[in-house]
Amino acid sequence: MSRFFVKRLDQLAPYTPGEQPQDQQYLKLNTNESPFPPSSKALEVLSREAVCQLNLYSDPDCKALIAAIAKRYSLEPEQVTVGNGSDEVLAFALRAFCDENTPLAYADITYGCYKTWCSLLGVPSIQIPLEEDYSINLKKYVGGQATVMIANPNAPTGLCKTPAEIEVVLQANRDQVVIVDEAYIDFGGESCVPLLKNYENLLVVQTYSKSRNLAGARLGFAMGSQELIADLNRIKFSFNPYNVNRLTCLAGIAAMEDEAYFQRCIQEIIQTRSWTAQQLKALGWTLTDSKANFLFAQSGKIPGGVIYQTLKERGILVRHFNAPRLENRLRITVGSQNQMERLLAAVARLEAEW
Amino acid sequence: MSRFFVKRLDQLAPYTPGEQPQDQQYLKLNTNESPFPPSSKALEVLSREAVCQLNLYSDPDCKALIAAIAKRYSLEPEQVTVGNGSDEVLAFALRAFCDENTPLAYADITYGCYKTWCSLLGVPSIQIPLEEDYSINLKKYVGGQATVMIANPNAPTGLCKTPAEIEVVLQANRDQVVIVDEAYIDFGGESCVPLLKNYENLLVVQTYSKSRNLAGARLGFAMGSQELIADLNRIKFSFNPYNVNRLTCLAGIAAMEDEAYFQRCIQEIIQTRSWTAQQLKALGWTLTDSKANFLFAQSGKIPGGVIYQTLKERGILVRHFNAPRLENRLRITVGSQNQMERLLAAVARLEAEW
Repeated sequence: MSRFFVKRLDQLAPYTPGEQPQDQQYLKLNTNESPFPPSSKALEVLSREAVCQLNLYSDPDCKALIAAIAKRYSLEPEQVTVGNGSDEVLAFALRAFCDENTPLAYADITYGCYKTWCSLLGVPSIQIPLEEDYSINLKKYVGGQATVMIANPNAPTGLCKTPAEIEVVLQANRDQVVIVDEAYIDFGGESCVPLLKNYENLLVVQTYSKSRNLAGARLGFAMGSQELIADLNRIKFSFNPYNVNRLTCLAGIAAMEDEAYFQRCIQEIIQTRSWTAQQLKALGWTLTDSKANFLFAQSGKIPGGVIYQTLKERGILVRHFNAPRLENRLRITVGSQNQMERLLAAVARLEAEW
Repeated sequence: MSRFFVKRLDQLAPYTPGEQPQDQQYLKLNTNESPFPPSSKALEVLSREAVCQLNLYSDPDCKALIAAIAKRYSLEPEQVTVGNGSDEVLAFALRAFCDENTPLAYADITYGCYKTWCSLLGVPSIQIPLEEDYSINLKKYVGGQATVMIANPNAPTGLCKTPAEIEVVLQANRDQVVIVDEAYIDFGGESCVPLLKNYENLLVVQTYSKSRNLAGARLGFAMGSQELIADLNRIKFSFNPYNVNRLTCLAGIAAMEDEAYFQRCIQEIIQTRSWTAQQLKALGWTLTDSKANFLFAQSGKIPGGVIYQTLKERGILVRHFNAPRLENRLRITVGSQNQMERLLAAVARLEAEW
């Protein structure tokens, strides 16, 4: 920290993303990327002609992209906005709906950025402990003055609530915004988007990074009432009006319109997840009922840190969080069937060696 | 504004970017884009293979890109960081080096985002009036507790200070960060980058949007001491760790390495600027000595708003700011020779009609 850095942020602890080694070939099962390439329709629109026009700015209103997303989710375009990954969209939402007097309530075990954004933005955190079985107890979110953030499915647990369960919070907290971070919803969960017609306090955030195979394009979106979306746009246009790349706008439209490929990729991940879970259970592992594109799993006998480290030495990266209640758990991205077979061979060897 | 929007920001006035009409063909001379396509080397690296890998995240550290920028400017990689356009980099700098007790000092006529970021971030603004001839009086920036922002060349005036002139502020304000926004420096100005070796309080910010023909790719960068850059990275990793798109990283490297094309584009803009200025003067217009890729010009007899409106009706967009001392001025992007000939024909017709 330089002597010029503002004092208010001297405790700021940045988020640590999963390792992204650039210099070696790993089997990367640590950042929940899709193992499949983007839709061939997205590849087509990123033509040489499109690339040649990169000297021109993108549309700051992202009209065509927003229209495509709105159509897919049966919403009005005014109910959708986009950002440079759902991280940016979520950070904008915190800026718009939280301040020193309006804390953010979220699970003690969840996506690490929520806490980081709170400290960056000067927003008090209310961390609500997960239950013994890692599930979220939504009753604990009812009442209070806090803006609520629910990752659904939650990460790294993979556990998912139904819209009916989340509706209880929306109904009880009419004067607070409830943000549902649905980064992983497409892998077997049920989205809260249909609740938007009844709840003006609901904001649903999704991403292209997982189920739409475009993590590297950086694209996320929020869906809510026209008023909430206008609030987010006010923040966007006060921070970085041209926040979405020109090519990303094009790829985002094409990927959103290719429903068949989207469904095919998802189904394959769900099948592979189920197969992998079965195999790990057969090796004595314990798993949650993950509805995400990752498993939250622990060996019956080997400490999580040891597995993480040994797999890494053997060329496989999984995610290990050195934190209470997580030390023995691993978050393992569900890749292709072939990738999971390699993972399982390595795990079986490790279990045999122990 | 919804009833959920934080009260602190109820006066927030978002930045209004130049019009980006998506539905009609205009000659766009209003947002200072380059008229030339990206370097052919950038086009090459955005291959089908690269696009196919968009399912994978970008490198959050942007190591290869930063290495290419550092090499070009003879700096250490630790002295460079990148962002989603220089807008994001500049906003990070304000977050890192300004707070309620450390205001930002900047010209009363300059890039509009400075003011917007101050209100978004709760940073007091100290607006320092330009001189009668629109020049910045750097003596007015000496002393005080404020972080200093100097757009050099300034926008929309195009006027440029020398590094020796800016050094006076750096020397006098050793305990304040001085940010030099060099978005337009490559079109004839002299960069402050060589001053970095002597001033730990200097931060230089540049962009790929103008001289490197990649506005649509969203890429900007900051250069400074290792400590200042580490501060910016702390903000970046607390806001959006994957802030630069995977394809943009690749294009950014290739464009930075193609020095010959970069120089060729710049020289052509400079020549066209000089030719256009001459022609406008011949029509009785007044211009500043712009060192940017735009002209700051006014007719001898027609009000600025009228010219803006009439040119728009005739298919040519220029930028008009409805603000004190700017009402009669237009900011006109220097496009290709052919584009400027079209502009001049339209202006000549207008002058004849008046």
